[in-house]
Amino acid sequence: METITIGQYDLIYNAFSFTFATMAAATLFFWFGRSQVADAYKTAMTVTGLVTAIAAYHYFRISESWADAFVLSNGTVVASEIAFNDAYRYVDWFLTVPLLLVELILVMGLSRQETTSKAIRLGLLAALMVGLGYPGEIADAASGRWLWGILAMIPFLWIVYELFVGLSRSVDQQPESARGLVKAAIWVTVLSWAFYPVVFFAGAIGLEGSTATTVVQVGYTIADIIAKAAFGVLIFMIAVRKSEADMGRARTA
Amino acid sequence: METITIGQYDLIYNAFSFTFATMAAATLFFWFGRSQVADAYKTAMTVTGLVTAIAAYHYFRISESWADAFVLSNGTVVASEIAFNDAYRYVDWFLTVPLLLVELILVMGLSRQETTSKAIRLGLLAALMVGLGYPGEIADAASGRWLWGILAMIPFLWIVYELFVGLSRSVDQQPESARGLVKAAIWVTVLSWAFYPVVFFAGAIGLEGSTATTVVQVGYTIADIIAKAAFGVLIFMIAVRKSEADMGRARTA
Repeated sequence: METITIGQYDLIYNAFSFTFATMAAATLFFWFGRSQVADAYKTAMTVTGLVTAIAAYHYFRISESWADAFVLSNGTVVASEIAFNDAYRYVDWFLTVPLLLVELILVMGLSRQETTSKAIRLGLLAALMVGLGYPGEIADAASGRWLWGILAMIPFLWIVYELFVGLSRSVDQQPESARGLVKAAIWVTVLSWAFYPVVFFAGAIGLEGSTATTVVQVGYTIADIIAKAAFGVLIFMIAVRKSEADMGRARTA
Repeated sequence: METITIGQYDLIYNAFSFTFATMAAATLFFWFGRSQVADAYKTAMTVTGLVTAIAAYHYFRISESWADAFVLSNGTVVASEIAFNDAYRYVDWFLTVPLLLVELILVMGLSRQETTSKAIRLGLLAALMVGLGYPGEIADAASGRWLWGILAMIPFLWIVYELFVGLSRSVDQQPESARGLVKAAIWVTVLSWAFYPVVFFAGAIGLEGSTATTVVQVGYTIADIIAKAAFGVLIFMIAVRKSEADMGRARTA
């Protein structure tokens, strides 16, 4: 991508700035919320805020990198000498995607042993998925994008299986007031994560140039907001309802 | 090292940025965790977060220094007028490596006298180890790297001895629920620290140029994440379990 319209440049820059503000605000919301939930769910809220904090840092960096990567010349926007560092996304996902699964597992309140084993297994699968996607993202040829993209789908499908099948018994054991929200959180995870390969493969089906850049950048940005900030709100609601349910049980015991 | 490929330059830059984000996130996690442990382990959590906070500061500086040390010229990355300041690492280690041993001793909850004497002895040995390594890191000849590297191994082996033999009685006195984790923390310390001399001596066995730079920088970065952030998670888990064990004992007493 050598040139890009001023409208596209502005749209992407503003999407990055918007997402920085959203992630930073979400972080503060989750960390304030920490004091409103029972001790058992405090770590879940800490991690939920960490995910959006890490994303806020990377969106700040991405927006700076985007601003440096272009210059205005004769009324058009052209690439500067400095390349846009798209790797910030993958660095972010490598850290935040495992943590997103960890926050879901933490808020479910499984046994200590199950928490550890599921957090490690799902965390490693998520890191593997992101690690396999990156060579495809930077591949020159569409074939490279297909190859690595399909390889990354294997841990993704494994995670989907673990979420729907491996966690199903634990979902049924959630207090009734939180069960629907836990199911919703699992669906938000799977559906929002499924959006990333759609954007990813948009680059492999011949979508090129500045339109492709706009679709990819704005697409990933929307997916990140849903998968991290909106998902985090669900985690907070689950933690609040489960805290209430635990208190109710303690009172009747 | 005069030139370096764009891929290597980017990999190192992104590894630094990733580590900054990881260390900053870990810091907040440990300091939030402070409220979830008994008073006896709060100082351990404070120090655990200090180690990653100091590392976050240095990785931020290192990434800035790295960006300043190279310029893009005709599609290749060449060294700029400003030298990369590798000393940030040693400054960091000089401060954080003694503190890593201090956090381990603090979470073990030894007697006041033992805590002080072991913290001073191990802290000084760790500072000596880092101080002896630095002249080797900046030595021009491989012989200098060997000489100082081997000298630095003496305090390192002493520390290993103190951890496995000097602390063995105290390990056996840990509550059963935490004993395995304390042993794991000692092993993580020894194994992750043993990784540094491997990277260090890679420069003495003839590995040169931009490949050596990449191995050294990425290698130290991975070792730092394991030795500080992953180790800190173990310290937090030990503190949580010991807090529970202490409470249980108080309740039955």
